[in-house]
Amino acid sequence: MNGFLITLEGIDSCGKTTQAGLLKRRLGDEAIPHLLIREPGGTPVGEKLRFLLLQKEHSLTNDTEILLYMAARAELVAAVIRPALEKGLVVICDRYFDSTVAYQGYGGGGDRAWIGALNEKVTGGLQPHLTFLFDLSVEEALRRRGGGGDRIEERDLTYHRRVRRGYLAIAEEQPHRFSLIDATGPAERQHEAVWLAADALLRGGCTR
Amino acid sequence: MNGFLITLEGIDSCGKTTQAGLLKRRLGDEAIPHLLIREPGGTPVGEKLRFLLLQKEHSLTNDTEILLYMAARAELVAAVIRPALEKGLVVICDRYFDSTVAYQGYGGGGDRAWIGALNEKVTGGLQPHLTFLFDLSVEEALRRRGGGGDRIEERDLTYHRRVRRGYLAIAEEQPHRFSLIDATGPAERQHEAVWLAADALLRGGCTR
Repeated sequence: MNGFLITLEGIDSCGKTTQAGLLKRRLGDEAIPHLLIREPGGTPVGEKLRFLLLQKEHSLTNDTEILLYMAARAELVAAVIRPALEKGLVVICDRYFDSTVAYQGYGGGGDRAWIGALNEKVTGGLQPHLTFLFDLSVEEALRRRGGGGDRIEERDLTYHRRVRRGYLAIAEEQPHRFSLIDATGPAERQHEAVWLAADALLRGGCTR
Repeated sequence: MNGFLITLEGIDSCGKTTQAGLLKRRLGDEAIPHLLIREPGGTPVGEKLRFLLLQKEHSLTNDTEILLYMAARAELVAAVIRPALEKGLVVICDRYFDSTVAYQGYGGGGDRAWIGALNEKVTGGLQPHLTFLFDLSVEEALRRRGGGGDRIEERDLTYHRRVRRGYLAIAEEQPHRFSLIDATGPAERQHEAVWLAADALLRGGCTR
C-alpha cells in the first residue's frame, strides 16, 4: 500500500474535527490526493451504527459499545481505508482504534487486552502511520461545548478524565506513532504543528 | 440462576419459529413462567441491529456480520436473558450463539475459533440447557419459502448447505446439549418431540 493513514484522537470537543478539516484543506492546497473520513461512520452501515451509538434514547453495555465500534471499523477498513491506501491516498481519519482503547477501555473499564485483540482482528493489523493526540483538560472541553452533548459526551467528568489519562498512556507507550498537540492553543498554531509532522511523514522523513 | 435456557436452531425456513410458538403455548398451558425471544433482537438496540443485518440495501463483510450479531447478543444476554433466568423463567430463544458458528463460521468461512471466543465473552459463558436443531434439506427449505427472502436467505444454495452441515457438526460435537428434530414431519409431531425433551429438562430428568 502506497498511501498514508493519519489519525486524529482526543476527548470530545478537543478540536480535532476542526484540525482534520484544516489538514484536509492543506493537502488540497498542496495537490496531494487525500480522503477525510470519520469513525464511527464512513460507510452506509457505519453511519447507521454511528447514529445508534450516539443517540440518547437507549443505554448500551460497554461490551456492546465495543462490538459496535469494531463492526463499524471492520467495514470502514475493508471498504474504504484499504482501497484508498492502495490507490496511494493520504487517508485522514477523525478517530480510529485508539478511541476504543481510550473510551471503552480506560473510560468504561473494558478489557483492554480484548479490545486490543479485536482492533488487531478488524483492522488486519493496519496501524496509522501517524496519530495526532489533541490534549486538553476535561473542564476546558466541557466549557467549549457549553454543557450537554450526545450519549457519550454526557457522561460524567470522571469518565472523561479516565479517557484523557488513557490517551496519554497510549501515546506514552507508542511514542514513534504519536504526535501530542496542545489543544489549548489557537487553531492555526495547532495546525502548523500538525502540518509540520504530516509533511515530514509524506516526504518520507522523520515524523517527529 | 434458577431458570432454563432453551434455544432453537436450524437453517432458514426450517420451521423453528413455528415450533418456538408451539413451545411457548405449551408452557403457557402448563402454567410455567416463560419468555420467548428472538435473536438478533429482543432489545431496542438488538431490533435495530436485526433490521440492519437483514435488510438488502447494503452488503456487509463476514466479520462485520459476526460483530453485529455479537453486539446484539451481548445486549440480549445482559438485559433480558440473565435477568429472566434469575427470576426462574424458562427462556425460549429463537436462535442463539450456534447460529453465528453455523452461518458466519461454516457458511461464511469465518474464523470459528474467534467466533467461539466472542460467543464465550459476550454471553459470559452462558450455555443453553437444551438446544433443538430442526434439520431439513436446503432444497426443501427453499421450496417452503417459495424463493426470495432477506439478505441472508437470498444467499446461494451452497452457502446454506454449508450452514446445514455446520449445524450437524456442532450438534455432533455436543450431543449432551442438542436434540435433533426431523423438520420434514408434521409440525404437531415435531412439537411432541420438542415437548418430550423440554418437559424432561424442566422436571430435572434427562433431556434426551
